[in-house]
Amino acid sequence: MKLFRHGPQGQERPGIVDGEGNPRDLSGVVRDIDASVLGASGLDALRALDLAALPVLDAGIRYGVPVATVPNLVCIGLNYTDHAEETNAPIPSQPIIFNKHTGALCGANDPVILPAGSTKLDWEVELAFVVGTPCWDVPEDRALDYVAGFCVLNDLSEREFQLEREGQWTKGKSFPTFAPCGPWLVTRDEIADVQDLDLWLDLNGNRVQTGTTRRMIFTCAHIVSYVSRYMALQPGDIITTGTPPGVGLGAVPPVFMKAGDVMRLGITGLGEQEQRLVPYAPQMARRWEARGAA
Amino acid sequence: MKLFRHGPQGQERPGIVDGEGNPRDLSGVVRDIDASVLGASGLDALRALDLAALPVLDAGIRYGVPVATVPNLVCIGLNYTDHAEETNAPIPSQPIIFNKHTGALCGANDPVILPAGSTKLDWEVELAFVVGTPCWDVPEDRALDYVAGFCVLNDLSEREFQLEREGQWTKGKSFPTFAPCGPWLVTRDEIADVQDLDLWLDLNGNRVQTGTTRRMIFTCAHIVSYVSRYMALQPGDIITTGTPPGVGLGAVPPVFMKAGDVMRLGITGLGEQEQRLVPYAPQMARRWEARGAA
Repeated sequence: MKLFRHGPQGQERPGIVDGEGNPRDLSGVVRDIDASVLGASGLDALRALDLAALPVLDAGIRYGVPVATVPNLVCIGLNYTDHAEETNAPIPSQPIIFNKHTGALCGANDPVILPAGSTKLDWEVELAFVVGTPCWDVPEDRALDYVAGFCVLNDLSEREFQLEREGQWTKGKSFPTFAPCGPWLVTRDEIADVQDLDLWLDLNGNRVQTGTTRRMIFTCAHIVSYVSRYMALQPGDIITTGTPPGVGLGAVPPVFMKAGDVMRLGITGLGEQEQRLVPYAPQMARRWEARGAA
Repeated sequence: MKLFRHGPQGQERPGIVDGEGNPRDLSGVVRDIDASVLGASGLDALRALDLAALPVLDAGIRYGVPVATVPNLVCIGLNYTDHAEETNAPIPSQPIIFNKHTGALCGANDPVILPAGSTKLDWEVELAFVVGTPCWDVPEDRALDYVAGFCVLNDLSEREFQLEREGQWTKGKSFPTFAPCGPWLVTRDEIADVQDLDLWLDLNGNRVQTGTTRRMIFTCAHIVSYVSRYMALQPGDIITTGTPPGVGLGAVPPVFMKAGDVMRLGITGLGEQEQRLVPYAPQMARRWEARGAA
């Protein structure tokens, strides 16, 4: 199944793609795409639905983050051999874990905000997965049982904030809109082999990233099992699994983005995203605060 | 006001401390200590209550995490000059930001779990604050207006996981029970000067950490303002502000904890915590999964 959330930011409703590729509204069936849906029984209940009975949605809907509540957004760094090489980083001997603040999440095609003073904003197409059931210290051979499904995630990274302003990467990874996610949560049964998917990203129409999950250093199953020994994963937690080669930091000379630039990216079977860069303005923060405080 | 949450794990109910220091039940007044309570109007409504009319609770109640939903647990590293020196780290020129997985949170006096294979578990008494209203790109002189209140947080850190297993600190900071929090959320009006509080931690009855928030490199107001330029803080987000000197990593030779050890810690006006170390056993994970999946 392809599940999604549609509508204005903060007012999203659940949806599902039918066999002909039409988006349909699920809000008469479930309250939202949340922990109550992400477990095996919740997904089975959706599988049993007659989708033809659900209202068809307009093709122009906005896609929000495909999961309603994301308790944690966990990231794996340098997980493709060829990406580690392009950034002059050593090949890690075990997964590198960091976090993005969950306020970075946004819809697949929402504008991405260029922070004030940013001169080194970079793109990173990534395969992400969504945890379906609580998951703590699980073996690798059963690890994928805990995963509800997969989605595309663009792990936007401001390299100066990340690498040149003291310590830890999260500082360059967490700005609002730095984690476009979706358009869909694609359930596990739809993906024949998650370790054989192509990833790509175009900047202003030029292909800059091309990769395949065959080149991952650590597989998705290994990542679930490994991370679950250091933290107890919760339904809705998203883990994004690293980016293939072709980021701006790895170019010679490095290439970073400016307002007006357009990213287009996708992964086999998981759909596509498109984001245009807009400059930060203080009224964005004030509007967001007013909406959240209401 | 001193707000708290009481009862068995996962079934906590809201509470408040009255003028005589008695814990009283708030569950007839508010559903929980969450975003609906943490803003200025929510706190004002609680201030207007006649606490004498609320049921008095038993002195032996369990204290849970004092905030029901914590979207993000953000941490500041090396924020006391004397702690940076003891760990041989340079004094940071701006705040170091990292995250703990929110699954690390637990009640103030809950047992702390020693992970399998852990040989370098360390303690860190810290002043934490809870965000009350949405907060993005705010100036330092108004920053504390966005804070609902303060609490004690023990930023448990497994130094081998943190420093010797590839990259980023979160790996050693996120295990379940690595963030005892509370017992209370103490609202801002109760703390005359947050930059003049004493912190202390005893290990097995011996004082190991002694500090004062006067020695912070970056004040709480500066931290709120600074962090809010890199991430949009949400009501319930907890930011913990770094630890004073006296951690095990800084001792010569280093001192780390073993099962049976007892930490006792506190901060002026914010209460005390006590945790006993218990070894990890797989049935803890299985029980947690079963409860979460139910």
